[in-house]
Amino acid sequence: MKAIQVQDDQQLVLADVERPELKPGEVLVKVKAVGVNRADLLQAAGHYPPPPGTSEVLGLECAGVIEDAGDTDREQGEKVACLLAGGAYAEYVAVPQGQLMPIPEGYSFEEAASVVEVACTVWSNLGMLAGLEPGQTLLIHGGAGGIGTFAIQLAKHLGLTVAVTAGSKEKLQACKELGADVLINYKEEDFAEVLKNKCDRILDIIGAKYLDQNVKALAKDGHMVIIGMQGGVKGELNIGRLLSKRGTISATALRARDLDDKANIVRSTTEHIWPLLAKGVIRHHIHQTLPLEQAQRAHQMLQDGEVTGKLVLSV
Amino acid sequence: MKAIQVQDDQQLVLADVERPELKPGEVLVKVKAVGVNRADLLQAAGHYPPPPGTSEVLGLECAGVIEDAGDTDREQGEKVACLLAGGAYAEYVAVPQGQLMPIPEGYSFEEAASVVEVACTVWSNLGMLAGLEPGQTLLIHGGAGGIGTFAIQLAKHLGLTVAVTAGSKEKLQACKELGADVLINYKEEDFAEVLKNKCDRILDIIGAKYLDQNVKALAKDGHMVIIGMQGGVKGELNIGRLLSKRGTISATALRARDLDDKANIVRSTTEHIWPLLAKGVIRHHIHQTLPLEQAQRAHQMLQDGEVTGKLVLSV
Repeated sequence: MKAIQVQDDQQLVLADVERPELKPGEVLVKVKAVGVNRADLLQAAGHYPPPPGTSEVLGLECAGVIEDAGDTDREQGEKVACLLAGGAYAEYVAVPQGQLMPIPEGYSFEEAASVVEVACTVWSNLGMLAGLEPGQTLLIHGGAGGIGTFAIQLAKHLGLTVAVTAGSKEKLQACKELGADVLINYKEEDFAEVLKNKCDRILDIIGAKYLDQNVKALAKDGHMVIIGMQGGVKGELNIGRLLSKRGTISATALRARDLDDKANIVRSTTEHIWPLLAKGVIRHHIHQTLPLEQAQRAHQMLQDGEVTGKLVLSV
Repeated sequence: MKAIQVQDDQQLVLADVERPELKPGEVLVKVKAVGVNRADLLQAAGHYPPPPGTSEVLGLECAGVIEDAGDTDREQGEKVACLLAGGAYAEYVAVPQGQLMPIPEGYSFEEAASVVEVACTVWSNLGMLAGLEPGQTLLIHGGAGGIGTFAIQLAKHLGLTVAVTAGSKEKLQACKELGADVLINYKEEDFAEVLKNKCDRILDIIGAKYLDQNVKALAKDGHMVIIGMQGGVKGELNIGRLLSKRGTISATALRARDLDDKANIVRSTTEHIWPLLAKGVIRHHIHQTLPLEQAQRAHQMLQDGEVTGKLVLSV
């Protein structure tokens, strides 16, 4: 089959490789569309190796059609979206059956392929881990990004007050149009001052650089979830301040979870998020679709920051 | 009424003061016995002021008899144990009705008075917040202390593997007799090396000094709860390591919680822990009982470290 391979010079090229062999509990999916993620760029650069025992091929999410149901009770020809540890930049990918999702009602393969990662990430952290209740205040860092725009819409639907940080007026305006209530340009204001003791939940992609400010912004019984470390890995934690608020800090990632854990997240995300996609309560925006062989161009576009929604590769 | 007052020289003396007036929802309890806590020493030294609107008198837990049921539907003459924000070093104390507990079956006033704080602290953090499941490994720092000995017994009853740290062979032996499985003398071994990636739950009283080691010791999906900061307030958090384990850190305290929160803890602790006290599954040890007027001596004993169980003041 054809698949994208990373050359020694880190260029992405279409090459002939062996079709993946199915392990017990896996199905073979003929890939129709693949979502492009920043993590793919990291992996191509050698900084984000696949977990042991998973495909070396890039690609964390896709949509397609079951070609071979293996030893499972799924049906050949079934249309599916897939959460993957890797392998989607290819004509075929092997998928553990617990990571198969239906195509959201009314969604194309392209839309389905590019909503899986963001939906599972936002729901597993905010819905399943921290929990969202009406009346709470949620702070989302990077509100205008893929995770941010999704999280704003979910939280507004659930009745929360949403505060966001972003680095420009245009980005904040985009957040406002999705329903965000408090808009903070981090270049002009200290979010910890504006939101001191006010945030019941924080979804953070910055890490070390924001740790102390996030603790300041936490409300009593507040819970912050760190899912990215764009601002560094090690930071000073003021335990006294955290204790005075009875605060909680979690840090999570999706890719390295075990099969049971992923199956649980996929099940819960399908139950709670898929109906909201079908009804248009949460809208999902594709910036552009390119053919798989232009994967290199897609990565370059993402790298250059000229993308305002998801990039999709069609196969 | 008589109550202990803290003089300017920090000496504790019995003095005549006004009886507390009842607010709506409070009952007046005639105090029979008071548990002495390290926090009382901090408060007497001026380092742990009572929360706004609560008694200036020392004493976070007591047992006694309802003298005046106020506007509640409790009965005069009812024997009760009480979780307090303060006020127990006295003949009478005003108690929000949500903080009244029954006397555990077979317990004396002295035993009941001195088990409330430790039971509510351990259960609210391990049972309600972090959650304990059979087969998990729990690390308890300061295993031989009041919190530690209680937590060891609870966790063993619930089917966990229990690891403890302590600073002497004798203390570790005491932990072993209560059921602890892994004994670590922190003066001789690095607990983070012994327990690397193994601890599903950690109950910590050290804070900053152990923060990095605790994160190393955490297992996947591990949850550490910090309830003391004997080793400092600010420490470096390795978010990358926490994220690789999908770890959670909480920091909590009991005294400053609001009435609803305390009532919830008291209810759950009565439901889950009181039967274990009645059956002797968890044993509670009183070191010595002194009369209220010897509060100063009791504090001195605790300060000098010559105490191996709880100190109680009888009124």
